[in-house]
Amino acid sequence: MVRYKIVIEYDGSEYVGWQKQPTGMSIQEAIEVALYKLTKQEIALHAAGRTDAGVHALGQVAHFELLQPMGLEKFVPGLNHFLRPHKISILSCEVAADDFHARFSAKKRYYKYIILNREALSPLFYERAWHVRKPLNTEKMREAAEYLVGTHDFSSFRATECQAKSPVKTMDKVNIEKDGEFIVLYFSAKSFLHHMVRNMVGTLKAVGAGGLCPDDIKRIIDVKDRRAAGVTAPPDGLYFLKVDY
Amino acid sequence: MVRYKIVIEYDGSEYVGWQKQPTGMSIQEAIEVALYKLTKQEIALHAAGRTDAGVHALGQVAHFELLQPMGLEKFVPGLNHFLRPHKISILSCEVAADDFHARFSAKKRYYKYIILNREALSPLFYERAWHVRKPLNTEKMREAAEYLVGTHDFSSFRATECQAKSPVKTMDKVNIEKDGEFIVLYFSAKSFLHHMVRNMVGTLKAVGAGGLCPDDIKRIIDVKDRRAAGVTAPPDGLYFLKVDY
Repeated sequence: MVRYKIVIEYDGSEYVGWQKQPTGMSIQEAIEVALYKLTKQEIALHAAGRTDAGVHALGQVAHFELLQPMGLEKFVPGLNHFLRPHKISILSCEVAADDFHARFSAKKRYYKYIILNREALSPLFYERAWHVRKPLNTEKMREAAEYLVGTHDFSSFRATECQAKSPVKTMDKVNIEKDGEFIVLYFSAKSFLHHMVRNMVGTLKAVGAGGLCPDDIKRIIDVKDRRAAGVTAPPDGLYFLKVDY
Repeated sequence: MVRYKIVIEYDGSEYVGWQKQPTGMSIQEAIEVALYKLTKQEIALHAAGRTDAGVHALGQVAHFELLQPMGLEKFVPGLNHFLRPHKISILSCEVAADDFHARFSAKKRYYKYIILNREALSPLFYERAWHVRKPLNTEKMREAAEYLVGTHDFSSFRATECQAKSPVKTMDKVNIEKDGEFIVLYFSAKSFLHHMVRNMVGTLKAVGAGGLCPDDIKRIIDVKDRRAAGVTAPPDGLYFLKVDY
């Protein structure tokens, strides 16, 4: 039995998300089918982060085991061959330790979220960014983001269907960069609750638009109630960047 | 008679190019149809640059005239409404001087070209970059680019079907930036020959890959023969950025 670690990029816009579902094609199913075609073995994939429908990845990580090991050099070209015409690409493959687990061994996860802040729609960022027409104040968004850093009960930023045992998480960083008409938000933490990044983005956007003040974030965290925070930002702008182990 | 100037963004991957053609849908035709639906007037559009099939634009400029003027505020939302579901967006519209011509009044045009330089395909940059697997030496590409700057006879970088009267052009700038796995090339000049940017990129890529030396560019310019230069880079990576008037 050999365990392998793969790094994956995908355009999530046409998929039901990472996880296999009866309602449509998932990233997991697409790769498992390609693995079967390559190895003739039924293989279960485990990912670092089960991204939602429409969410993209530049460096998703997954692991799987093979009963009959194969030459490492065959995985990247072989899987990419069988993945065509899926909008999924295997970037690298390596042998991992027997106790490596893409999800449970993760030390830090990194996400970015792209907001396009201008009047006109962007065909080149269609399904790749959240299009917000109202001008956002990034200075206020940065002030607000400071309240999210550190260890908190993030119940106000947690989807009702979230299955995590505890709502307490530690946000290492929230950086907000303005790049012309784009506002790019970077988040890193050991782990996140379900919809946590998108709920934080929706709330920071409300601060940027003036509907909330930066220090409202403290109150929203303290009240531990999802209804206190902003809307869930759409999946289009969210990118799973990488994982540290 | 009132003349209007519009700025346009498009994802060129599904179009036959800017110019109307019997073989398929062009950016020009899509916008002229939307203009007709909005104004009920038959209107001819003139663009700053007639981009090829597959080439994108972040700031293409075009002008048109209306016999019966309309309120300026209606153009952007109205045209974008009638352009759906085209991957074309009108970014702005203003009244222009009677002698303004999107093509002939242009003082400087700006392009960028994105190369993705790594082994694996990128689903997120599919049709948005030139995927080059062989590692490119950007220092050598920068050295080579210096030879392109200035006034030269660019016959070696000119498509055979080019209709320009003179092959002499003045390149103001060629900048090459490395950004992780991406190499982004910026070009600016008053005007370009047909395929000139893509032919320069194909030649600079050959320098980066080691097939040509930086000072071969001087020889290639001097010989004034298209066969001396590199391949025409694919349209996927090319973006028409903006125009100065």
